[in-house]
Amino acid sequence: MLNPTAAIIIIGNEILSGRIQDINVLYIAKKLTEIGIKLSEVRIISDTQKMIIDTVLALKSQYDYIFTTGGIGPTHDDITTVAIATALNLSIELNPLAENVIRKFCVLHNQPFNQAVEKMAFLPHGCKLIDNNISGAPGFIVENIYVMAGVPNIMHSMFEQVLSTLKHGNPIISKYIDIMIGENIIATDFADLQNKYPDIEMGSYPFKKDDQCGTSLVLSSANTLLLEQAYADLLKLVHKILSKRDSISCVKSVDCHYELT
Amino acid sequence: MLNPTAAIIIIGNEILSGRIQDINVLYIAKKLTEIGIKLSEVRIISDTQKMIIDTVLALKSQYDYIFTTGGIGPTHDDITTVAIATALNLSIELNPLAENVIRKFCVLHNQPFNQAVEKMAFLPHGCKLIDNNISGAPGFIVENIYVMAGVPNIMHSMFEQVLSTLKHGNPIISKYIDIMIGENIIATDFADLQNKYPDIEMGSYPFKKDDQCGTSLVLSSANTLLLEQAYADLLKLVHKILSKRDSISCVKSVDCHYELT
Repeated sequence: MLNPTAAIIIIGNEILSGRIQDINVLYIAKKLTEIGIKLSEVRIISDTQKMIIDTVLALKSQYDYIFTTGGIGPTHDDITTVAIATALNLSIELNPLAENVIRKFCVLHNQPFNQAVEKMAFLPHGCKLIDNNISGAPGFIVENIYVMAGVPNIMHSMFEQVLSTLKHGNPIISKYIDIMIGENIIATDFADLQNKYPDIEMGSYPFKKDDQCGTSLVLSSANTLLLEQAYADLLKLVHKILSKRDSISCVKSVDCHYELT
Repeated sequence: MLNPTAAIIIIGNEILSGRIQDINVLYIAKKLTEIGIKLSEVRIISDTQKMIIDTVLALKSQYDYIFTTGGIGPTHDDITTVAIATALNLSIELNPLAENVIRKFCVLHNQPFNQAVEKMAFLPHGCKLIDNNISGAPGFIVENIYVMAGVPNIMHSMFEQVLSTLKHGNPIISKYIDIMIGENIIATDFADLQNKYPDIEMGSYPFKKDDQCGTSLVLSSANTLLLEQAYADLLKLVHKILSKRDSISCVKSVDCHYELT
């Protein structure tokens, strides 16, 4: 059975203008990989109604899960909730559960429950809440769309909650070897290995260390048995190449990149 | 006149699997903002022919410039060049200029010019080369698509070269104030300011510092005169709110976020 699929939509002018570095993709990507959900694409888009609507409509039928971050706060530039409701043809209404949670949070933290705060309780009809343990105002789920805050620690808190409710696939395990030769040296043999194991994803990533060329050879699969076979073959291949080059101890790492959880 | 627009396509399974943090978007986004090109969207996609073709075809007519990073190396998983040629219905052929550059680089660095290396000289018919000062093999330009390496320092070297050839717009300047109150306190007044200056992009971004809530209020525009007016109004607004709250020196920063270049 194929693993479930997902896409992330990062909503935020602050990323597109280069004002801040996105770190939400890495967090979500790692977690999905660990539980065997295939992250198929990411889109980073502006805080504009048309862009959000078009992107949600383009992606929601293509993937099992859509995760959005950003644009659900109290200010005028937070338009994700309304845009998603519009995309799905749902009305926006005061959600009593959300209002209750936000009112309690305001009392507890001595903050006014003003119009801006109340805005965060207006959510699409029929949505399910995602609790926010950090700043009160919840995220929400409509259809297969998980709408979360953009602030990383708030997003983490929301994502951790929904993680256990997602259909798990087979965890995708990666094993890699870092070898201190350029990737062109091993390219042909590595391609042959890929042909031998078409179901293993094989990637080659060049890097520099102490001004020397190195290559990360990464094998990934949800099939652990097949992965181990391919990895054993890769080890043999690396040793063959290194012995030819009269070089020793070039293999820097043979660690498992992701542990099974 | 409107600023030119751009999209970035990050091609790389290593980002989607959570193996590495993308840092190419931030770099390109900053540079584009500085010279007045509006980065409208980013897509992070897998190293698969169909995905690359679909994404290139979806974006190339929507924006003035498309920048891609990743997938132009010597290994079997580097399929960007062929995918883009296929998307544009161009043949792939041995580019004599590229071959010459790569051969010279190999001689200089005592590397074999093997089949894997030669692969990087097979480029779409009619493309223009982007020099690679770091590792030899060039990127290329076809139509409005700028195809660059994924390794950050190689991408930087390529991007720096093309930057001066791009149509510049009016630089987009941002000015911001960091204020140590929650964004809900200032939300209504900030929305009023946005209504007064509909042509200034206004964003509100919450943060935490020493466990206290803070908000970055960011104004951006290519119209410096209008930006200064709106910023002066924002300063007044912030002082009004702070005086009400009987709080002093809450304004942490009034710096210009981007300098004019």
